[in-house]
Amino acid sequence: MPSHRYRPVHERVEVPAHHRRWPSRTVTAAPLWVPVDLRDGNQALADPMDPDRKRRMFELFVAMGFKEIEVGYPSASRTDFDFVRLLAERDLVPDDVTPVVFTAARRDLIERTYASIEGLPRAVVHMYTSTAPTWRDVVLGQDRDDLRAFITRAAGHVARLGEGRPGVRFEFSPEVFNLTEPDYVLEICNGLSALWDASPDRPVIHNLPATVEVATPNVYADQIEYMHRHLDRRDGVILSVHPHNDRGTGVACAELAVLAGAQRVEGCLFGNGERTGNVDLVTLALNLHAQGVDPMIDFSDIDVVRATVEHCNRIPVHPRHPYGGDLVYTAFSGTHQDAIKKGFAHHERRAAELGVTPDRAPWAVPYLPIDPRDVGRDYEAVIRVNSQSGKGGVAYVLGAEHGLDLPRGLQIDFSRAVQAEAELSGGEVTGERLWELFRAAYVGRTGPVELLRWKVDDAGGEHVFTGDFAVHGAGGTRGEGTGVGPLAALTAALRGLGHDVEIVGYTEHAVPAAGRAAAGEESLAAAYVECRVAGATAWGVGLAASVLTAAVDAVVSAVNHAAALD
Amino acid sequence: MPSHRYRPVHERVEVPAHHRRWPSRTVTAAPLWVPVDLRDGNQALADPMDPDRKRRMFELFVAMGFKEIEVGYPSASRTDFDFVRLLAERDLVPDDVTPVVFTAARRDLIERTYASIEGLPRAVVHMYTSTAPTWRDVVLGQDRDDLRAFITRAAGHVARLGEGRPGVRFEFSPEVFNLTEPDYVLEICNGLSALWDASPDRPVIHNLPATVEVATPNVYADQIEYMHRHLDRRDGVILSVHPHNDRGTGVACAELAVLAGAQRVEGCLFGNGERTGNVDLVTLALNLHAQGVDPMIDFSDIDVVRATVEHCNRIPVHPRHPYGGDLVYTAFSGTHQDAIKKGFAHHERRAAELGVTPDRAPWAVPYLPIDPRDVGRDYEAVIRVNSQSGKGGVAYVLGAEHGLDLPRGLQIDFSRAVQAEAELSGGEVTGERLWELFRAAYVGRTGPVELLRWKVDDAGGEHVFTGDFAVHGAGGTRGEGTGVGPLAALTAALRGLGHDVEIVGYTEHAVPAAGRAAAGEESLAAAYVECRVAGATAWGVGLAASVLTAAVDAVVSAVNHAAALD
Repeated sequence: MPSHRYRPVHERVEVPAHHRRWPSRTVTAAPLWVPVDLRDGNQALADPMDPDRKRRMFELFVAMGFKEIEVGYPSASRTDFDFVRLLAERDLVPDDVTPVVFTAARRDLIERTYASIEGLPRAVVHMYTSTAPTWRDVVLGQDRDDLRAFITRAAGHVARLGEGRPGVRFEFSPEVFNLTEPDYVLEICNGLSALWDASPDRPVIHNLPATVEVATPNVYADQIEYMHRHLDRRDGVILSVHPHNDRGTGVACAELAVLAGAQRVEGCLFGNGERTGNVDLVTLALNLHAQGVDPMIDFSDIDVVRATVEHCNRIPVHPRHPYGGDLVYTAFSGTHQDAIKKGFAHHERRAAELGVTPDRAPWAVPYLPIDPRDVGRDYEAVIRVNSQSGKGGVAYVLGAEHGLDLPRGLQIDFSRAVQAEAELSGGEVTGERLWELFRAAYVGRTGPVELLRWKVDDAGGEHVFTGDFAVHGAGGTRGEGTGVGPLAALTAALRGLGHDVEIVGYTEHAVPAAGRAAAGEESLAAAYVECRVAGATAWGVGLAASVLTAAVDAVVSAVNHAAALD
Repeated sequence: MPSHRYRPVHERVEVPAHHRRWPSRTVTAAPLWVPVDLRDGNQALADPMDPDRKRRMFELFVAMGFKEIEVGYPSASRTDFDFVRLLAERDLVPDDVTPVVFTAARRDLIERTYASIEGLPRAVVHMYTSTAPTWRDVVLGQDRDDLRAFITRAAGHVARLGEGRPGVRFEFSPEVFNLTEPDYVLEICNGLSALWDASPDRPVIHNLPATVEVATPNVYADQIEYMHRHLDRRDGVILSVHPHNDRGTGVACAELAVLAGAQRVEGCLFGNGERTGNVDLVTLALNLHAQGVDPMIDFSDIDVVRATVEHCNRIPVHPRHPYGGDLVYTAFSGTHQDAIKKGFAHHERRAAELGVTPDRAPWAVPYLPIDPRDVGRDYEAVIRVNSQSGKGGVAYVLGAEHGLDLPRGLQIDFSRAVQAEAELSGGEVTGERLWELFRAAYVGRTGPVELLRWKVDDAGGEHVFTGDFAVHGAGGTRGEGTGVGPLAALTAALRGLGHDVEIVGYTEHAVPAAGRAAAGEESLAAAYVECRVAGATAWGVGLAASVLTAAVDAVVSAVNHAAALD
């Protein structure tokens, strides 16, 4: 690769030496999240949002609990101007929400921006200018002094037009901050803090964008910490970050920046934005949640959030997108499935011990960083079966969908059959197909032995089994046997008919509500039997209203199953 | 959100105090990249790869230059076993490539793994066991000592079966390393280094997975640096990492881990893998490239890589995926387009100054972290126009596709018309549509003035323009005028016919090859005229083989354009 064409960022922008503290810090509270989907995100769409889409997105933000929302770039687009007017004239902004409007640093555009927010009780006027050397040289044709003077003049207009409007606050973005000389940015920001009279009562926002990602995220954190420690009027400044994702490290940049002193994060839902997108606020917020810190944003139904975003942006969310993708709570691998199955069982026990419902109990299920139910997902898609799956997954699906608790030997036996089927078909084995395979192999299996009618009598400590058998399709044959229990009596009867059957293993359980509902039964027992018949060993399963019927059915199925293995 | 259910990782796993050095380091050489798509990635697909897909993926890896490739989990799946046998029996592994086979720590599975690599001159046998507390307690039911003994026994089998096969090396993964007590992992790894006799000649790989991401990436870097500094036989150990992406920080984890001492990175192309995926090797490698470090992997045609991966995984790459997505070299925003247009022009000049072709010159184009041509993308999709675009984008498209270099005033005039159209249609304006709009507004525009035939005579320092005009659709009217140049003579002629025309601005240029080809002309001149006619100002454009014809056409178009504005 012609990598010699590029220079590492540390050769281009050096952060002055300082005692780095961010790597030792942890986050204990959510920063202020500011979605910029309606401006920065919208600018990146082949088909920008129409007014209806803008409004749906805005209402989603409000419902989720965002308190500061960038609503547009009113001086650059008629649609945006009209949308801000709509918010103002229809009084659509709740009292605890502040809209942000974006503008370039030009007098006429600043004036039009103010015209758009006329009548809004609160607003942030957000002015930006690119400050990095390449932009100064190639795009703007201004040196450091010229550009600083240009920014200061524009900021003066912003201040004058904001006079007498205490609800209007000011934000400045030195675009491409991360490629700008730190001392130069600091000088500009401190100048604006003075000009705009930054104070705790009316704080100024300095928003420091990684407009194009160019370095490992620790470099951005160093840059932010440098600003954090050197900004004047620090208690009158809200230090904000605005990472992009060209290197796939936007989330890391935002997180390390918060460790380094950032108090506010601009981004988009699911990471929309020019090129590779803005940092994803969904991932950031739920990352905090997964560390035990309340993100202060409501993600209790992430699929509604996602559907609205997909509708507005007309770009799909990837199936592997953290927290919101279709596949992110799904395990196909056998090892993972086995662990998750055990983890779910352990979680239920733990919740019971603590006397809380499972959705309130501390979460510690392997391979699932959060409980899918926290974000409104259910467990149905958690375990999906293909040729890479093992006994755990198969057992989990039959347990979750049919209430069956398969003995370990049967899990192994059945998972081999499922894997063979999956390798043959090359694809996923659905829950429905799994159930078909299970029934065909183990339940009511036909073969050499058919039991037409039967009864068991308790003859004073001994059980007597009497049955009418159809053997090899021939007419009824009466069989009878005696044993210490009903199954011993049944095997004695089978022996009398020439079937040398030995029961190797037997378990049974009542099928819980979910499985009964699936089967359409009010009461249901499951019996699992492993039989050895003439050297072959096979499993059979019985499902019936009575335990005894289930057990007898299981033995007959196992005998027929064994015959098929010969 | 019920965030109280989760505990931050620093309360669960504490890295012993150590002098942290990774934040001060930079990466200067590529680590060893090991794609695990054929195992870890494959296990995560609803439809796992068939043998043909496996082979196409393997051949892609070889072609790209990967030197160590995980080829499967032969003891867990027939398909994988057969695939490894295919590699061995057909001699498909080049001499400089080492295949890796994955196995659980069980004697029968280890034996089957060795059976799969019979006949391969080189292989890495990669054994894994989960080591984190939740896994020990909930999944394995083993305490620290039991589990260490279990791992040691299995590692002994691995060593014995590898005796006399110097081409076989050993790898151990303490799964969920990032949630395991660091001292415990260190003890296990050091034990295996001794047991496997790690040495520079036959190094042991210790691969430390962030199986489920649980903390900000700096925590993983601390964990890796701790291991890096405390591993025995350090020069006989290859320290490897295997990040996942549950928190969207897989790339950052890998990068910070390399700063912290990791020498080898396992991941998948475009980040396939269980749930949110494994770390993406494409992003990691091209991040290095963008910092001036050769990734030692060939991405010169990223679309071929992507097409193969999409074919094998049957999962699309997201349009915003770094380096490979459809939209990642595209700018819709007017500001970005203007800067990119200037950046491209600057880049061409810079290359000419340096006497190199543009594809070899140092790259510094705003908003494009790398030259799309480095990865086989062209510039066609770089600038796309919608309602969020401005003069820069519009000018760029007409320049790139038609060779026109619009004066700034015309850029602004036309971009207003384009924006109005884009807001009306609500979508993207294609290059084709842009050209239609441009021609309709400025080129050969009809109206009150129609020029049927004309000539210009040079009368000794003065020019005389003579033309037959069709005025307001009426029959021919002869017009004549005299001036210091041809256009002055033309305006004099128009004045004689009652059209008070003043030329406010005029520029012209020869149209370069690309534009001539688009127009189907061998030679072509473009003329741009801004006229004031009875108070209205309007632009007209002429495109003709001769400069004079282009200029005359431009004036007539401008006059007719101005009339339409009345």
